[in-house]
Amino acid sequence: MKAVTLIADWDPRPGFKLGSKDIEGRQTYLGSRVWRNPRLEIREYDVPKPGPGEVLIEVKACGICGSDVHMAQADEEGYILYPGLTGFPCILGHELSGVVVEAGPGAYDKRTNKPFKGGEPVCAEEMLWCGECQPCSDGYPNHCERLNEIGFNVNGAFAKYIVLPAKYLWSLEPLRERYGEEKMFLAGSLVEPTSVAYNAVIERGGGIRPGDNVVICGGGPIGLAAVAILKRHGAARVILSEPSPSRAELGKKLGADYIIDPTKVDFTEEVLRITDGYGASLYLEATGLPQIVYPQIEKTIWEGRTLNSTVVIVARADAKIPVTGEVLQVRRARIIGAQGHSGHGTFPRVIESMAAGMDMTPIITKKIKLDEVPEHIIKLQTDRTECKVTCVMD
Amino acid sequence: MKAVTLIADWDPRPGFKLGSKDIEGRQTYLGSRVWRNPRLEIREYDVPKPGPGEVLIEVKACGICGSDVHMAQADEEGYILYPGLTGFPCILGHELSGVVVEAGPGAYDKRTNKPFKGGEPVCAEEMLWCGECQPCSDGYPNHCERLNEIGFNVNGAFAKYIVLPAKYLWSLEPLRERYGEEKMFLAGSLVEPTSVAYNAVIERGGGIRPGDNVVICGGGPIGLAAVAILKRHGAARVILSEPSPSRAELGKKLGADYIIDPTKVDFTEEVLRITDGYGASLYLEATGLPQIVYPQIEKTIWEGRTLNSTVVIVARADAKIPVTGEVLQVRRARIIGAQGHSGHGTFPRVIESMAAGMDMTPIITKKIKLDEVPEHIIKLQTDRTECKVTCVMD
Amino acid sequence: MKAVTLIADWDPRPGFKLGSKDIEGRQTYLGSRVWRNPRLEIREYDVPKPGPGEVLIEVKACGICGSDVHMAQADEEGYILYPGLTGFPCILGHELSGVVVEAGPGAYDKRTNKPFKGGEPVCAEEMLWCGECQPCSDGYPNHCERLNEIGFNVNGAFAKYIVLPAKYLWSLEPLRERYGEEKMFLAGSLVEPTSVAYNAVIERGGGIRPGDNVVICGGGPIGLAAVAILKRHGAARVILSEPSPSRAELGKKLGADYIIDPTKVDFTEEVLRITDGYGASLYLEATGLPQIVYPQIEKTIWEGRTLNSTVVIVARADAKIPVTGEVLQVRRARIIGAQGHSGHGTFPRVIESMAAGMDMTPIITKKIKLDEVPEHIIKLQTDRTECKVTCVMD
Amino acid sequence: MKAVTLIADWDPRPGFKLGSKDIEGRQTYLGSRVWRNPRLEIREYDVPKPGPGEVLIEVKACGICGSDVHMAQADEEGYILYPGLTGFPCILGHELSGVVVEAGPGAYDKRTNKPFKGGEPVCAEEMLWCGECQPCSDGYPNHCERLNEIGFNVNGAFAKYIVLPAKYLWSLEPLRERYGEEKMFLAGSLVEPTSVAYNAVIERGGGIRPGDNVVICGGGPIGLAAVAILKRHGAARVILSEPSPSRAELGKKLGADYIIDPTKVDFTEEVLRITDGYGASLYLEATGLPQIVYPQIEKTIWEGRTLNSTVVIVARADAKIPVTGEVLQVRRARIIGAQGHSGHGTFPRVIESMAAGMDMTPIITKKIKLDEVPEHIIKLQTDRTECKVTCVMD
Repeated sequence: MKAVTLIADWDPRPGFKLGSKDIEGRQTYLGSRVWRNPRLEIREYDVPKPGPGEVLIEVKACGICGSDVHMAQADEEGYILYPGLTGFPCILGHELSGVVVEAGPGAYDKRTNKPFKGGEPVCAEEMLWCGECQPCSDGYPNHCERLNEIGFNVNGAFAKYIVLPAKYLWSLEPLRERYGEEKMFLAGSLVEPTSVAYNAVIERGGGIRPGDNVVICGGGPIGLAAVAILKRHGAARVILSEPSPSRAELGKKLGADYIIDPTKVDFTEEVLRITDGYGASLYLEATGLPQIVYPQIEKTIWEGRTLNSTVVIVARADAKIPVTGEVLQVRRARIIGAQGHSGHGTFPRVIESMAAGMDMTPIITKKIKLDEVPEHIIKLQTDRTECKVTCVMD
Repeated sequence: MKAVTLIADWDPRPGFKLGSKDIEGRQTYLGSRVWRNPRLEIREYDVPKPGPGEVLIEVKACGICGSDVHMAQADEEGYILYPGLTGFPCILGHELSGVVVEAGPGAYDKRTNKPFKGGEPVCAEEMLWCGECQPCSDGYPNHCERLNEIGFNVNGAFAKYIVLPAKYLWSLEPLRERYGEEKMFLAGSLVEPTSVAYNAVIERGGGIRPGDNVVICGGGPIGLAAVAILKRHGAARVILSEPSPSRAELGKKLGADYIIDPTKVDFTEEVLRITDGYGASLYLEATGLPQIVYPQIEKTIWEGRTLNSTVVIVARADAKIPVTGEVLQVRRARIIGAQGHSGHGTFPRVIESMAAGMDMTPIITKKIKLDEVPEHIIKLQTDRTECKVTCVMD
Repeated sequence: MKAVTLIADWDPRPGFKLGSKDIEGRQTYLGSRVWRNPRLEIREYDVPKPGPGEVLIEVKACGICGSDVHMAQADEEGYILYPGLTGFPCILGHELSGVVVEAGPGAYDKRTNKPFKGGEPVCAEEMLWCGECQPCSDGYPNHCERLNEIGFNVNGAFAKYIVLPAKYLWSLEPLRERYGEEKMFLAGSLVEPTSVAYNAVIERGGGIRPGDNVVICGGGPIGLAAVAILKRHGAARVILSEPSPSRAELGKKLGADYIIDPTKVDFTEEVLRITDGYGASLYLEATGLPQIVYPQIEKTIWEGRTLNSTVVIVARADAKIPVTGEVLQVRRARIIGAQGHSGHGTFPRVIESMAAGMDMTPIITKKIKLDEVPEHIIKLQTDRTECKVTCVMD
Repeated sequence: MKAVTLIADWDPRPGFKLGSKDIEGRQTYLGSRVWRNPRLEIREYDVPKPGPGEVLIEVKACGICGSDVHMAQADEEGYILYPGLTGFPCILGHELSGVVVEAGPGAYDKRTNKPFKGGEPVCAEEMLWCGECQPCSDGYPNHCERLNEIGFNVNGAFAKYIVLPAKYLWSLEPLRERYGEEKMFLAGSLVEPTSVAYNAVIERGGGIRPGDNVVICGGGPIGLAAVAILKRHGAARVILSEPSPSRAELGKKLGADYIIDPTKVDFTEEVLRITDGYGASLYLEATGLPQIVYPQIEKTIWEGRTLNSTVVIVARADAKIPVTGEVLQVRRARIIGAQGHSGHGTFPRVIESMAAGMDMTPIITKKIKLDEVPEHIIKLQTDRTECKVTCVMD
């Protein structure tokens, strides 16, 4: 079978030392310090075989994620931009849906609590949490100490087939009635990024009470998913702050009541105007520019009348965020970090929400074939016109 | 001004002793043990004057509540059915909306944090919590140790005017844009009962996560409000269990996805069928027959796969509920009691939810004039055709 | 090696049907409906070998649990009393501590996040949660859908050695400094039952705030552990309700401020007297007689001034509990079921609490040798003099 | 009666504009921008009379707080250092205990839920929350929109008598048995500052689970109270970071297991060493130097293995805190602001904790007479030898 493969050279920067989980020449937790000259190839592989507890999946759809783009993108010195766990060569692709073709012994379907049967439509978590370390044992798989990741250091789903342990799979059967045979796999390929947003605003942010206001900063896939989730959760006003008109348009489709272009209007003034001076109960930082966005949020919290605001930081960024403690004190506010999508009943609830009408498929602005994946990964390095580009298998 | 007044005779049953908060001949916490021969009259009153911290309100709409009916209804021995705090004669009516006409000194409008101005549309909490006892100080006004209640032992709103302390009022201004001048007062008169449901399922029940299922047992005004709130909160499936076809119809209007008639189908089987064997995360007992309803809920929790179910008991009832501890253990479930509507940001969130589109007015199935209130209170003792009968002032 | 083995005959009662997880002649989820003529033998076994992810442990101490007693005890028809998951013949014993002797490949020590090394002192969870079903994936291993249990359907620790998967083990190293080489294993053998209590009052009951009162009903090992945990958690008054003078004495050693003998005094009167009329924030039902105990608790909640009381049901019982919904409403109370000890960071926090001074070893009232285990299991069927009888290996 | 009075000149800095709650010449929310030339005088007053809902208290003890010092301390231009709500002349003193001498009509004792009687020992909240604005109605009195403060803009307790509304008082009767007639008033005068710490770590910080570690940064009265509270709440290790040896000594008396001098050792290294590499679940910033302390905390969270750490900011400071979002993400951590001491059942739980043995009186390092208050307020501007200086009335 053909598969989109990322290759790069193991050429650590000066001073790099192998970490405890790194493997010389094969894998590192600090991608951008090690891997050089990334290139994408479509390579030929044998169809893999499922072992005990594993399942062979025929991939139906797989979205391109920003991290795919950053793994294939080099800086001036040729090192990849993506800073995290990586092991090359690796088949990319982790936002997948597909159909179970074959199951190894002891591979159970969580939906039926019985061995997997062929024909089950599924999606997969991207994080291969070990289930045995202390964070996993304590209930925090997103913080697994021995994590592997599909499409990063374990072969991914830009391929006809993929083998995965059954425990990371969730049935898409609930989507069939509303979406039909074809669209259910598109929706299914969005469960993973939607779950990142759900984990951020519901599990970590604590959700909202019906009637609360929310502000989402950043209209990428995560921000847009947060818009849809919080609209569904009962927000009185969902405000999306996003300068791009096309993303703003998507935001409206997904449930945003108001759009702010923070490059054109005063963020705080506008949020307070829309909310009759109250501001919001939940702010999501999903831009990756917290040093710019947080001070705007903070000013809005300070000047608004809402108490108990929660600021959730979901986008990754190096920049220091300048925080005024007094604002947190006077307004009874808090700042929370969010990562991952596993555990806490997130995947099944996202699927149930989609089944009940939370249609995320409008964010897929382009559908492509497997052969077209490499060129689109390259194109997305510079061209942000499309929101989500999704590979649909023949 | 004219006002619908309940009169009854102070004639304690044998063995009754004055409680610490009772006042001989005037007020008791145990209405059904004391008051005999209730009768409704339309009496003439002077327009009251607002004192310090108080406001004079011109009433625009006021709904008839089940407790109004029970206060006016006698058992075989002539004692009123309503068991709680009562002091007669009393003007009835506590589900009110109106317009501020005049404000005493120091009467602040929470919306503006400034002194009340004439023209502000408002609704009122029914519970006159003291704000000074330990429960109030600790943040639990619904459990005030020195409570008074509008329309029970303090003159209510089946009248042209009512004077109330400003602190129990909430502005209906947010409703104006969506509902318009007239309908906003109908919606406003429903804030109180809707807040009882909101307190039950959100504050006490802890709300749900988007994608959870819920079952509401009982399609009275509280149950129907819970349907609307939980649909808005992101329930995947809102199931209303209610035998009356007209109530079922209202349930659908307010957001129920499925209706069960528990007198015709097996409750557990049906809930499990609808939910693919999972059952629900939240069950609301709003029928007043927990001895019948709870065993059905319990069986559903036991046989369904959902963990962490919450059963909220909101309807009052004397009957003992037979609870199997093992079900709570094996299914990680819990039972919670709910009363009241005050505090916890409930009123403002209900108003904001209504302003954002949660239209409760379909439950008003009949609008009447002040003169017609007594006859309708009597009629509602036997005829449950109407859901909410609301008095609209001229 | 020698091991205490329970043997019984597969002789299902009339009408019994194999459940989905039952195995003809070998295992059932309904022990008391199937197994007849239980007898204890000390049998000879080969020392087991650790496979991948597994560890060989030399057992140092193992307590006798009530369920060991009930598995070996027959009713009038010869069926065992224990109603749950069982597969015989089986080596009993699940309250174990020991030392790692040998580790299979990929067997990680959570303490170091490195492969297990010989010499590590450990205790074990009793519940072998699968880590792959939906409850496990969602973070609720105590409600695993494919559970196995050490000493019930998987060979246990009344033996010189036991092999267990590493992921169920927790290091006792933190206990060494305070308890020393010998006593640390006694304390370690109590981590499992203490974790059952911790899960009940902290994870499920939500803990308390410093200054709250608590009432523990039942002075068995679970109730006594709850006394110690809640005293440590900041209870103003820990009240233990327990008729046995020797258990009461242990309760005092473990931190109870007051003891009530509910067979001699009025429970409600006494609790209200001790608490100046307030009652308690948390009540633990750990007697197995909820039909007797709950009405006493309910009356105390009703008459006391404390709001937000939580009643946790941890002891298993068939009896229906008669619950008055109005009490839960008026007092803002709730009832919660608790089972298990796994997950939620419970084991490591119990160990850290013991390391910091929460000494549970006084509940071990008798230490015995392996050879003496069968006779003591038999004796405990009728003689409740001892609290915890613990087998200490040579 | 004599009373310690602060006088200052209303002389607003250039550009100052009266705020909405300011009163020309009398009161401002921005003390340090308005008041000049502060001086302390012992003035003569008539004994005040309690009105409706009020109580006359004979003061028994009153502590000097840091804000008393800052109100009386001038910067180079003569403006007071204290930046907040102030109205002069004003009798200072808000950490008070005393005995009820006389009660106005309708002044209820929360302890008995009956009218106050002479002889009741009491302490008082310092924050006179209105109980009527939206934050108060929603249950957040610490964020009252119409706040007054005892000893800041309302006459305080460095006087023989003070009149206060009954609703701010809490009975000290529970302290009598343990502390005796004299010491109970010393303990009682510490309820207010202890409640600030309790609100920070329990109400806002969410408390801990038994077995968690905590780090308190700053050994002032608030930090020391947090030490005592968290020790009592079940912390495995209470670590106090404080350079002053005398404060460190007090920390040990109040329950700190370890003391770190962050000016002499590496904070992160030391915390990780003490906690076997885990770090802490709760960090309290109580130094007022968050720009220095937070980076140390952040590094400890990053390098430690503990997930879900909470950082509570309780000390006021202008400085921006540099926060790395990624640390909050990877470690599942959060930052929370805390202010105030009212509501949420805090005062009664602090009193109950004290009654049960949490003795805070060691932090009173000096007892003085009323006449000596002014000189000690001045001395404390430069001399930080004493921890808490408390005025004991004759």
